[in-house]
Amino acid sequence: MATAKAHTNIALVKYWGKKDQELIIPQTDSLSLTLDEFYTTTTVDFDQELASDQVMINGQQLGGPAARKVTRLLDIVRQRSDLTARARVDSHNHVPTAAGLASSASAFAALAGAASQAAGLQLDRRGLSRLARRGSGSATRSVYGGLVEWQAGNDDQTSYAVPIMEEVDFGIEMIAILIDTRQKKISSRFGMQQSVATSPYYRLWPEVVAHDMVAVKKAIAARDVDQIGAIAEENALRMHALTLSAAPGFTYFDSDTLKAMAIVRELRANGINCYFTMDAGPNVKVIYDRVNREAVYSSLADQLGADRLVVAKPGPGIKIWND
Amino acid sequence: MATAKAHTNIALVKYWGKKDQELIIPQTDSLSLTLDEFYTTTTVDFDQELASDQVMINGQQLGGPAARKVTRLLDIVRQRSDLTARARVDSHNHVPTAAGLASSASAFAALAGAASQAAGLQLDRRGLSRLARRGSGSATRSVYGGLVEWQAGNDDQTSYAVPIMEEVDFGIEMIAILIDTRQKKISSRFGMQQSVATSPYYRLWPEVVAHDMVAVKKAIAARDVDQIGAIAEENALRMHALTLSAAPGFTYFDSDTLKAMAIVRELRANGINCYFTMDAGPNVKVIYDRVNREAVYSSLADQLGADRLVVAKPGPGIKIWND
Repeated sequence: MATAKAHTNIALVKYWGKKDQELIIPQTDSLSLTLDEFYTTTTVDFDQELASDQVMINGQQLGGPAARKVTRLLDIVRQRSDLTARARVDSHNHVPTAAGLASSASAFAALAGAASQAAGLQLDRRGLSRLARRGSGSATRSVYGGLVEWQAGNDDQTSYAVPIMEEVDFGIEMIAILIDTRQKKISSRFGMQQSVATSPYYRLWPEVVAHDMVAVKKAIAARDVDQIGAIAEENALRMHALTLSAAPGFTYFDSDTLKAMAIVRELRANGINCYFTMDAGPNVKVIYDRVNREAVYSSLADQLGADRLVVAKPGPGIKIWND
Repeated sequence: MATAKAHTNIALVKYWGKKDQELIIPQTDSLSLTLDEFYTTTTVDFDQELASDQVMINGQQLGGPAARKVTRLLDIVRQRSDLTARARVDSHNHVPTAAGLASSASAFAALAGAASQAAGLQLDRRGLSRLARRGSGSATRSVYGGLVEWQAGNDDQTSYAVPIMEEVDFGIEMIAILIDTRQKKISSRFGMQQSVATSPYYRLWPEVVAHDMVAVKKAIAARDVDQIGAIAEENALRMHALTLSAAPGFTYFDSDTLKAMAIVRELRANGINCYFTMDAGPNVKVIYDRVNREAVYSSLADQLGADRLVVAKPGPGIKIWND
């Protein structure tokens, strides 16, 4: 029996498209910031008495395709450890589910950590990152704290995250604007598949990412929050242009997304530097240097409501313990 | 002294990007439907007594860059006809100005028609189309009625519109949804320049258009409104993906644009076939077969208000007369 705590991450250079659906090998590298405010704590207990895996999320029994994804990851762990016992999984998400706030990142990182530990596997962090990847692509990065790169690789062995700066020693922060915490309509898995298969622009996405990865690592080395934010904003819009140009085209934006984007641009026009990024949902994350926190927060609170804002700082990597 | 009446057109396959800014030679072909409901009537009178061109639009004197664009077109006409006289231009727009409803298309087509006639130039329609092009790209197509192709060409001689089906003999119609008739913030001229210069995806746009031009002409030959609409919707979204992916990225959509798009998709999901297209502004045009007019109209009217809707049918080509 073991427990793991893992934090979400928000990509500054996005992961959008797989080259292997089964192993979750991405088309490109990506780079993210792990956040302190959003995390998942998961306990796994393998028990011979159980007839099937029992998965509880926030006190509710999980069924359907979501439960099958958990069982698939547990199967990988069982296979590697020659275990046959079914597991009791008790997971608590401190993340609004499935609204582009990457709850699956922290959830599958925590599951990989707790299950592998409970099964007696001695995985190093690279091994954990590879295992988390099998549950959800973005979980690959949530094994590490701070700024993290997911190196695409070509197969299960070579596709894993590496830390770029685990202890972030400069002022980058994010405000998450909660726009719609209901279930989103188009999953990121389906959205990226559609983009890869049908957007005529998708074939240039690897070039866009290759360029942005070099630029963002340079900006991180220079501790240049404005440069990091500008790259992240441009990269996000270029990802969302792939959904718009798919067949059929679609968008994750809603009217509040457009409003939040406009507020960020207006703040910037008024000399308060901040930048937006959005994932596969309507929520907007605003990137800024902590010296601008008060100005950014108060402007967003005035126009959108303080109850929809969460200030998030760089967060730590995964922690795992035996219960 | 001569008067011309020209109608607007809405592109089904968009014009987005110039290869020659001065001569307005587009990067790609495009294809549009001329509409009956929106038009411009313009009278031009060359008068030796005038010290400078006098331009009235809807009874208001025009100045600034807009007036200079008119004078530039008049200069071309004067040069070709060896006229030196300045002109009195009196123009009436039956189009909401500069909100993506292509008022410049009808305006510059009517100006080209009236000015060339008043100056005694004997231009055929191809010549008129080339002249209108010098004022505004989309005006190139407004010389003809119905379904019109603008062949990009390579220079002033070879870039002009040709009629595909002047008398439209099937049920295609559009409902224009007036979302914001105030001046737009980013002109189409600037928006397309930014897209050409900074969107990494722009270099695939010519391929997208080449594919869509073949497909839409086939669909027109088959009188297949659904196929025409589906191509137009996809083409429009791929054009708007170019603005989102520019540097800096931008969008012409506002919250009502997203709402109108959602209504169209919902109608279609309910078996009422209709399709959307948007130009360089927030307005949405809905394409459908006239057998669906009542169903589409009543649903849009319920959700957006009937006062914002204009039903438009295929319109005629330019008419020119001496006063």
